[in-house]
Amino acid sequence: MTSTSTPRLVREQGVTAPEGFRATGIAAGIKASGAPDLALVFNEGPDHGAAAVFTRNKVKAAPVLWTQQMIKTGRARAVLLNSGGANACTGPGGFQDTHATAEALAAALSQWGTETGAIEVAVCSTGLIGDRLPMDKVLAGVEAIVHEMAGGLTGGAEAAAAIMTTDNVPKQVALHHEGNWTVGGMAKGAGMLAPSLATMLCVITTDAVANAAALDQALRHATGQTFDRLDIDGSCSTNDTVLLLASGASEIAPSQADLDAAVLAVCNDLCAQLQADAEGVTKRVAVTVTGAATEDDAVVAARTIARDSLVKTALFGSDPNWGRVLAAVGMAPVDLDPDRINVLFNGSPVCVNGTGAPGARDVDLSGSDITVVVELGVGSADATIRTTDLSHAYVEENSAYSS
Amino acid sequence: MTSTSTPRLVREQGVTAPEGFRATGIAAGIKASGAPDLALVFNEGPDHGAAAVFTRNKVKAAPVLWTQQMIKTGRARAVLLNSGGANACTGPGGFQDTHATAEALAAALSQWGTETGAIEVAVCSTGLIGDRLPMDKVLAGVEAIVHEMAGGLTGGAEAAAAIMTTDNVPKQVALHHEGNWTVGGMAKGAGMLAPSLATMLCVITTDAVANAAALDQALRHATGQTFDRLDIDGSCSTNDTVLLLASGASEIAPSQADLDAAVLAVCNDLCAQLQADAEGVTKRVAVTVTGAATEDDAVVAARTIARDSLVKTALFGSDPNWGRVLAAVGMAPVDLDPDRINVLFNGSPVCVNGTGAPGARDVDLSGSDITVVVELGVGSADATIRTTDLSHAYVEENSAYSS
Repeated sequence: MTSTSTPRLVREQGVTAPEGFRATGIAAGIKASGAPDLALVFNEGPDHGAAAVFTRNKVKAAPVLWTQQMIKTGRARAVLLNSGGANACTGPGGFQDTHATAEALAAALSQWGTETGAIEVAVCSTGLIGDRLPMDKVLAGVEAIVHEMAGGLTGGAEAAAAIMTTDNVPKQVALHHEGNWTVGGMAKGAGMLAPSLATMLCVITTDAVANAAALDQALRHATGQTFDRLDIDGSCSTNDTVLLLASGASEIAPSQADLDAAVLAVCNDLCAQLQADAEGVTKRVAVTVTGAATEDDAVVAARTIARDSLVKTALFGSDPNWGRVLAAVGMAPVDLDPDRINVLFNGSPVCVNGTGAPGARDVDLSGSDITVVVELGVGSADATIRTTDLSHAYVEENSAYSS
Repeated sequence: MTSTSTPRLVREQGVTAPEGFRATGIAAGIKASGAPDLALVFNEGPDHGAAAVFTRNKVKAAPVLWTQQMIKTGRARAVLLNSGGANACTGPGGFQDTHATAEALAAALSQWGTETGAIEVAVCSTGLIGDRLPMDKVLAGVEAIVHEMAGGLTGGAEAAAAIMTTDNVPKQVALHHEGNWTVGGMAKGAGMLAPSLATMLCVITTDAVANAAALDQALRHATGQTFDRLDIDGSCSTNDTVLLLASGASEIAPSQADLDAAVLAVCNDLCAQLQADAEGVTKRVAVTVTGAATEDDAVVAARTIARDSLVKTALFGSDPNWGRVLAAVGMAPVDLDPDRINVLFNGSPVCVNGTGAPGARDVDLSGSDITVVVELGVGSADATIRTTDLSHAYVEENSAYSS
């Protein structure tokens, strides 16, 4: 960091914390419950640089296909997000719906006073896969939301609330570099990888001056270290999208290193908020693999453990069943020697050189935060995957989602 | 099949159904509950050909390391199996325990009247990973069990009961070729792959005349089609072992095709029994992928769907949430075109060309058997993975296994 003051992280603020952004969320009637379901983030400029990362799922929702195309320009003037429906597996008609939504928002923004083309509008959707969106409600909502959007902190908070699905709380955060420039963000979601949960959406804004290439580098670096390493249930969504928009309104051009660090800090905090509110979570679990031959090996090994249903159910039961960690890591396609593996639960050695340590069955895992450290001892690379336990509430929540 | 009569499958019989085998199970005190925990299968000959397949986990239990070595001779005179402890992750001491167990059984069999070397004794263990076995009890049990073993059907049933861990019922089956030759088998386990569950053990016997190479071919063919395609929770055990022993006592030498078919039929039936008694099962689910580019692609795609926690919880809830099947298969590293995928639940189309079909949300999944068919439409290969739902009972059973 080359900044003169220490950045300040504030969770009460989100995408409208940086200068040059307006946002809001409204209830457009997409959700049967009448809860807020349509959000808008608008970049007033003067700059409109943007970058994005998307789900790696081969089955991609219509808004992902659309936004992947428009973001190639390196520009975005607005992001429209809806909850209440993923618009995934909806065929050509679903894609037309997304396109029509972008066109409608562009027209509404133009009428409102900012000449906008559909190609400047990113679209994100989240909710049940497989149903068409109620386009009459979406289009009426688009018309209305442009008149509701506001600067200040309220707009960002409203947007964060309108993208929630199974989330219990909205997630937003802002990182202020005193008197200088700011990065803000909001996210929703409950399980993910790559960045690809079920379903994860995230919009990050900054008033820094940064071109699309700089934004792209900062975003890929940050998501690789954060959202890519949060794995709630191993399932990968059709809709995951993380967008980064820069207004340049601060007139400050941070170094790439400072921009990278700021975007990473915001993603990291949003990631922790997603983990803490994951479906059915009773334990926040960090699985760290050290001594791997490569960082990729460390990520793969940690992810294999973090996804193992037997490990996750044991942690739900506060059961220090370390043998399941060995059994899980033994299936990871990485270099390892079973006779050199050490395992620590909450810092206490439970397995040394592949064999149980004295007192291993007595380690206390009753708290809500659990660390699992696996030392492979074959190299010097390490990585951490954040996950949760597999609980009754997870099963309950996911056993009747569409019905 | 070149046999003259149709083989007859009988579930009340197991490893002692073929001529030339004795077996039994006793309570040796390894389990604190006092339940049966030590089983012996003894091949009286005249032949002693044998073959085996093992877990692919890099972390292998001591008895797996032992049996992998002794089976290289292509011969086995006896199999000793214990429940109540996996003897995995127990270091060099654990391996010495397995070796001492084989030595003790060889000595006891020699004293009993059959000259036996330790190298002719296969050893299998199942239970909690990480604890040493109570060797005083194991060795006393070995001494006793030799005197208890019996021919007839009772011995096989006792052996099948003594290898149970979380199993609710023993699993055994015999396939009789009338007046000719017989294949029998027993198994225990609750989740698996490759063959590798948590924990799966299986012993198959036959009185056919067959050398080790023929047995190895029959066993690999059969397990590749059955145990390798049963996937309860994606977790792979440190102890999985499937053994095939031939006594030659029938003096019938079936063709390789007949032997393959018979071993396949026995493995297939045991597989169905394992699925039906899997931990927490409320639904038996068959996931079939058709139209894949290769059979490997079909297996990988079906396995990816079968392991997906969101698919499995939806099926637990009888929720026809087909979008989750699309999201899961979209992550499989196989050739596919999202716009050509069809999905059928219990035979009813729920997704056609990647888009929801009319009535998809109304398909009845309330029964205990569910079929999921995914047509990729890119080739002509297919495969089926058997799995179960992810239920409250699964979470409950696995949240306090070691404590």
